[in-house]
Amino acid sequence: MLKRNPCIANIKAGYLFPEIAKRRREFAAAHPEAKIISLGIGNTTEPILPHIDAGLVEGARQLGTLEGYSGYGDEQGLTALRERIALVVYKGKVAPNEVFISDGAKCDIGRFQLLFGAGTPVAVQDPSYPVYVDGSVLIGAAGGWEGSGYKGITYLPCTAENNYFPDLSRLPPECLIYFCSPNNPTGAVANRAQLEALVKAADKNGSIIIFDAAYAEYIRDSSLPKSIYEIEGAKTCAIEVNSFSKPAGFTGVRLGWSVVPLELTYSGGESINTDWNRICTTVFNGASNVAQAGGLAALDSEGLKEVRELCDFYLGNAKLIRGTLEKLGISCVGGDNSPYIWARFPGRDSWEVFSEILDKCQVVTTPGSGFGPAGQSFIRFSAFGHRVDVEEACSRLKRLPM
Amino acid sequence: MLKRNPCIANIKAGYLFPEIAKRRREFAAAHPEAKIISLGIGNTTEPILPHIDAGLVEGARQLGTLEGYSGYGDEQGLTALRERIALVVYKGKVAPNEVFISDGAKCDIGRFQLLFGAGTPVAVQDPSYPVYVDGSVLIGAAGGWEGSGYKGITYLPCTAENNYFPDLSRLPPECLIYFCSPNNPTGAVANRAQLEALVKAADKNGSIIIFDAAYAEYIRDSSLPKSIYEIEGAKTCAIEVNSFSKPAGFTGVRLGWSVVPLELTYSGGESINTDWNRICTTVFNGASNVAQAGGLAALDSEGLKEVRELCDFYLGNAKLIRGTLEKLGISCVGGDNSPYIWARFPGRDSWEVFSEILDKCQVVTTPGSGFGPAGQSFIRFSAFGHRVDVEEACSRLKRLPM
Repeated sequence: MLKRNPCIANIKAGYLFPEIAKRRREFAAAHPEAKIISLGIGNTTEPILPHIDAGLVEGARQLGTLEGYSGYGDEQGLTALRERIALVVYKGKVAPNEVFISDGAKCDIGRFQLLFGAGTPVAVQDPSYPVYVDGSVLIGAAGGWEGSGYKGITYLPCTAENNYFPDLSRLPPECLIYFCSPNNPTGAVANRAQLEALVKAADKNGSIIIFDAAYAEYIRDSSLPKSIYEIEGAKTCAIEVNSFSKPAGFTGVRLGWSVVPLELTYSGGESINTDWNRICTTVFNGASNVAQAGGLAALDSEGLKEVRELCDFYLGNAKLIRGTLEKLGISCVGGDNSPYIWARFPGRDSWEVFSEILDKCQVVTTPGSGFGPAGQSFIRFSAFGHRVDVEEACSRLKRLPM
Repeated sequence: MLKRNPCIANIKAGYLFPEIAKRRREFAAAHPEAKIISLGIGNTTEPILPHIDAGLVEGARQLGTLEGYSGYGDEQGLTALRERIALVVYKGKVAPNEVFISDGAKCDIGRFQLLFGAGTPVAVQDPSYPVYVDGSVLIGAAGGWEGSGYKGITYLPCTAENNYFPDLSRLPPECLIYFCSPNNPTGAVANRAQLEALVKAADKNGSIIIFDAAYAEYIRDSSLPKSIYEIEGAKTCAIEVNSFSKPAGFTGVRLGWSVVPLELTYSGGESINTDWNRICTTVFNGASNVAQAGGLAALDSEGLKEVRELCDFYLGNAKLIRGTLEKLGISCVGGDNSPYIWARFPGRDSWEVFSEILDKCQVVTTPGSGFGPAGQSFIRFSAFGHRVDVEEACSRLKRLPM
């Protein structure tokens, strides 16, 4: 029989969120009367706002008409959407043919692995969103688990001590750097000086940054960069991934994009933009045309107001959660320019705190250790939820004698 | 700087369809007066029929309501859709947890590469749909181009001489076999005895079949199997990929599925279903919820009638095209139980015939050699088009002195 890909065998345990879902199901089965509230997975809960939803509805309706029907589109996405992203999100700093529409950031991060392949040195913020690491293991860029991390991955701790920004002197040479700001899970946002240092470090040691800006629309402090391309020199060393999931409530609709600058090359001078185009045309077939119609609506003037309104709503939740935790004496970061609050429980095991909060408050959270070794003793609270549920969760969290 | 993945460097030239699009653009630029008709790429042209489109519209509308909103769904797809596919398409021969909803067959074929990884021996029908081969090269299952094919890929010629069914005695041991029926591009459909021989051969030599059934709904001869699981023993040696693209006109909507049987294992006994689940949860995030609402509508009694109606329409086109070509004395296969007609131009180069048809008739086709070495001297005609265009194309084809 055919052999199993040894790379899959290298992946440890279940992916974080299915594991949380499993534990939640088990708790619910044992406590059928419990009214569980989830502040766990970062899953949007509010209806898509009227103008943007009308874009989706109209996109679907058009498909039933002779004039409005469309079959396969360009794998890279609708030209109009690529143009609008270049103009509206990047103020013309990137060109439409540097923008590739995707079915979401997670899926693109999976496909990016194909650009560099097995054996590529990888550096990640620690803690970090699991797909950076798991995707690297699947393609063989990283090897087996070695006690506290995967072989071939450099974990850059982001802790209270360094204000959640990594020590860049620890970057290995010529590596792929996954960097997320506003950060998932810590909620910390890198400032301009920090991003300048990151770009300079990548440029100096021949590395490429995969900059995950999926939460950029949650930034309210106007001094904080929303895109890596606000930093000079980024176009020769950074790819940016982004998504409509969190700003427009498209988590289920599936729509995102990546920017691969024309200037970006491999060591041999080959164009990464050309290779990315080839990967998209070969193993991808474009995002749903209905989702793209919604994306266009999200980026016109009315849509942008709705994006702002939706993010403001979740930031309101974040403020309530962070306020509650701080009153309990729990030290927190995030929640001001991001929908995540990263709460510290010194000396304790994350899964143990997760279980305690589930037991005592019937609130599902995300154990920090699921995001990497430096996430140990932290809990991520997600601000995605109905207001009434968040208020009830905050009220129950007061039961915690932390 | 970071190095290019050597696997990408191994891929030859452009992906077939972008290359055709480029040649079409060049022709149009040089002949601005020409009214080009495409019988090239297999891209659906007819509006989505009313009941199915209403499913999409309602799916989009629901997202704007508190009760109907959904964020991330299960990466494997909606339970209701998995159940309906298991019941309606497979008559209960497969279980819902063997069905994984995707954003299309091409994308899943790309991800399947991760199950087996680099160095996996691969066998393909020759000619074949490009993603089987290109995807194998991208993951390193196949190596560089060697004159007439990629290293590590066994090409199994499907020609007029063997009635477009390959010589199975040429299968290498323990390989991954890509098999498509109704075939793209030849339009040939394997009969029951042939599929029994295929399953037996795979079983005997420890191989796994990736059975592409994306055109199954075009089968009108009831003696021909629509699924590999109609063949005894297939569940221990075959994965099936399928799609809503061609039966429901969802090419742009992006919705498909794959069946990975629970019985299917690697040589070490590990469950492939478990690994596939892990891959889906790690580097995929589910198909669009709007698309899935449409998929549910396509599989109820009214939807199934519309699927039949749409396929019948395109089969009507196919009959016209095949009839026209045969009257010109061109030998053809396909078009009766599939939307493709495979036409033979003995002794001629496919791209040369492609150019001649474009020049003389302003009709875009697909050169057979783009599908593999044995496609040389063939042209694929696609039956996807408005009736008026197909009729006009047929009338123009009569200009060909073949």
